[in-house]
Amino acid sequence: MMKKKIVILGSTGSIGKQTLSVVSDNVKAFELIGISGWENVNLLREQILKYKPKIVVVKNEYFAKKLKNSINRQINIKIMWGMRGLIELATIEDIDLVVMAITGISSLIPTYEAIKINKNIALASKEAMVVAGEILTREAKSRNINIIPIDSEHNAIFQCIGNDKTTNISKIILTASGGSLYHLNESSMKSVTVEEALNHPNWNMGDKITIDSATLMNKGLEVIEARWFFNVPIEKIDVVIHPQSYVHSIVQFVDGTLQAQISEHDMRLPIQFALTYPDRYKNNYPVLDLIKVRQLTFKSPNYKKFPCLKLAYKAIEIGGTMPAVLNAANEIAVSAFLNERISIVEIPIVIQAIMKNHKVKTNPLMTDILDADFWARREALEFFLNNK
Amino acid sequence: MMKKKIVILGSTGSIGKQTLSVVSDNVKAFELIGISGWENVNLLREQILKYKPKIVVVKNEYFAKKLKNSINRQINIKIMWGMRGLIELATIEDIDLVVMAITGISSLIPTYEAIKINKNIALASKEAMVVAGEILTREAKSRNINIIPIDSEHNAIFQCIGNDKTTNISKIILTASGGSLYHLNESSMKSVTVEEALNHPNWNMGDKITIDSATLMNKGLEVIEARWFFNVPIEKIDVVIHPQSYVHSIVQFVDGTLQAQISEHDMRLPIQFALTYPDRYKNNYPVLDLIKVRQLTFKSPNYKKFPCLKLAYKAIEIGGTMPAVLNAANEIAVSAFLNERISIVEIPIVIQAIMKNHKVKTNPLMTDILDADFWARREALEFFLNNK
Repeated sequence: MMKKKIVILGSTGSIGKQTLSVVSDNVKAFELIGISGWENVNLLREQILKYKPKIVVVKNEYFAKKLKNSINRQINIKIMWGMRGLIELATIEDIDLVVMAITGISSLIPTYEAIKINKNIALASKEAMVVAGEILTREAKSRNINIIPIDSEHNAIFQCIGNDKTTNISKIILTASGGSLYHLNESSMKSVTVEEALNHPNWNMGDKITIDSATLMNKGLEVIEARWFFNVPIEKIDVVIHPQSYVHSIVQFVDGTLQAQISEHDMRLPIQFALTYPDRYKNNYPVLDLIKVRQLTFKSPNYKKFPCLKLAYKAIEIGGTMPAVLNAANEIAVSAFLNERISIVEIPIVIQAIMKNHKVKTNPLMTDILDADFWARREALEFFLNNK
Repeated sequence: MMKKKIVILGSTGSIGKQTLSVVSDNVKAFELIGISGWENVNLLREQILKYKPKIVVVKNEYFAKKLKNSINRQINIKIMWGMRGLIELATIEDIDLVVMAITGISSLIPTYEAIKINKNIALASKEAMVVAGEILTREAKSRNINIIPIDSEHNAIFQCIGNDKTTNISKIILTASGGSLYHLNESSMKSVTVEEALNHPNWNMGDKITIDSATLMNKGLEVIEARWFFNVPIEKIDVVIHPQSYVHSIVQFVDGTLQAQISEHDMRLPIQFALTYPDRYKNNYPVLDLIKVRQLTFKSPNYKKFPCLKLAYKAIEIGGTMPAVLNAANEIAVSAFLNERISIVEIPIVIQAIMKNHKVKTNPLMTDILDADFWARREALEFFLNNK
């Protein structure tokens, strides 16, 4: 078997680390060519020793030197840095798959550049698809390459669609755990502490995404992603609360059939699928036992209690640069909440105010999206300077 | 679009009638060439007037004359009869799909003959696959034709597998409603009346299959069918009790992913899928709303209370002609229960006794299977003559 040559952008993050474990569980199938971390030189050093990539990218020259000094001189490794390093890593000529696991908007340009030279992408970075899904999927389609979602919901939908035509989809039903605050009544939301909001019922993730789960903005961003990943109009995308989080998402077809993907809470599953697609490989990861689970429940989301979800629908309905504004404003607002400058219920208020001030550019170029992102961040910061 | 030319064997039964309604809901897609009923001349007459097939098959010359006299002379229709008529109907040169919806063992030979001249089959008749799945699937595979299951469980599995390789299946999980007696404790089973056993919680079906649901023999027969339909070893086929019957079955893949097909209790859905495969057509049939359903539950089957399920596993493990014996003995035993000659708990006792006396023929020819079927029926009848 020819080994699939892969690079992982963001190897020191949660998805990156799990991708490395999937790669090392399937050494016969994959060859790791390169990785990127940012400032976490210690972990990068460990990963270099363990997984033996040939290329590594860090934040800047300072970290490059630091990393170089920390590893044995006899290890033959190329160290690059910055956005330019990321782009070089994502566009190495003979790699078969780029695993994009950088958090935030930094994932956008390397993803775009990789697509433009016909690389298949396994995409974990939400933001790239949220802010520029229209461009990325158009470019991918015209080159007949795959952008395979790693996010468990979109990975589930990708699996449920299988070889069916996307025109046969009548609805995409994204499941949501409900996050850490779903049990609270509307009035209790105001006084939620950072600690409470960070206490996710089903798993541990980074702070930003855990808050996004608590506000349901995470699901809103996923709605936007789904719109582009699967090329379906927004009115065909629904959200359903499924507290057990075993059903990762559901596709409803025009003939009345629902297809659901169900599995354990283990990101190695969607990661492995994205890496092995179109095949599946046997593994020893835990398998869900429905008899032990006993029940799967479903309920309607409370849009009133979670206005962020509505805002996301509104942003993608407006389209153009608006999803980029939603994403950027949310990032700043969440950071303000994490720093205890605003309450959690003020997050959607901030976002809404900034969306209202935005002059939307339709059919945006990549530069328009970057401009909108920058504009929204500055607006959000100004909002805090003026209001607090 | 070229219309798919179809014939329906068993058009006056429950599946046959629903197939006709699917065909008439999709007049642009299908052309109905022929139908068969057996003795129900009135319904056949109605179907001829409404759906305008060119050929119809009845039980014998008597019913053929009766039907001919009941319809207007100006209607140009060919009437045939008997097994020979069924075989002719299933092997008409220019038909694209044979819908096999005859109940009982009579479906076997027409199915076999249709496969041998490269007809795709939409198979509702359980018995054909239970008794001769090895032969039918071997013949179908060697001719590269499809036998698409109509039974909701197997249809679900067929959909869940999609384009995946069957070698990627680690488990087939057949869901079972549990039938009418699942709530009873073991000691109450003895005194179950025919009326109680016929009271299925989720739907109305024929008497024989409703009793098979109550004893879980229906699920046992489906386990045997699944073994052949999907070419998986029997140890990879599990049964799980799912009382709501919305999850029609589940496939577990080697990578730990479960794929489930979920829909309303409406046989028109699997029928339409079997007819339109590999495409899907839009319809106006009811769509399941998981938010209204609220919960899906799963539990382990009680093999002790339902020995028929174990017997079915045993029959397919032994293989050869044994599944045919299981099927035939069950048919006679169920008929004895429906005629109040034995209690429901005696059904598996009868079957087990007959299985014990059977000299298994491995790698059976079609004639061996028919012989085993005949032998088991005679044995079962003798069992009742000697024991009652």
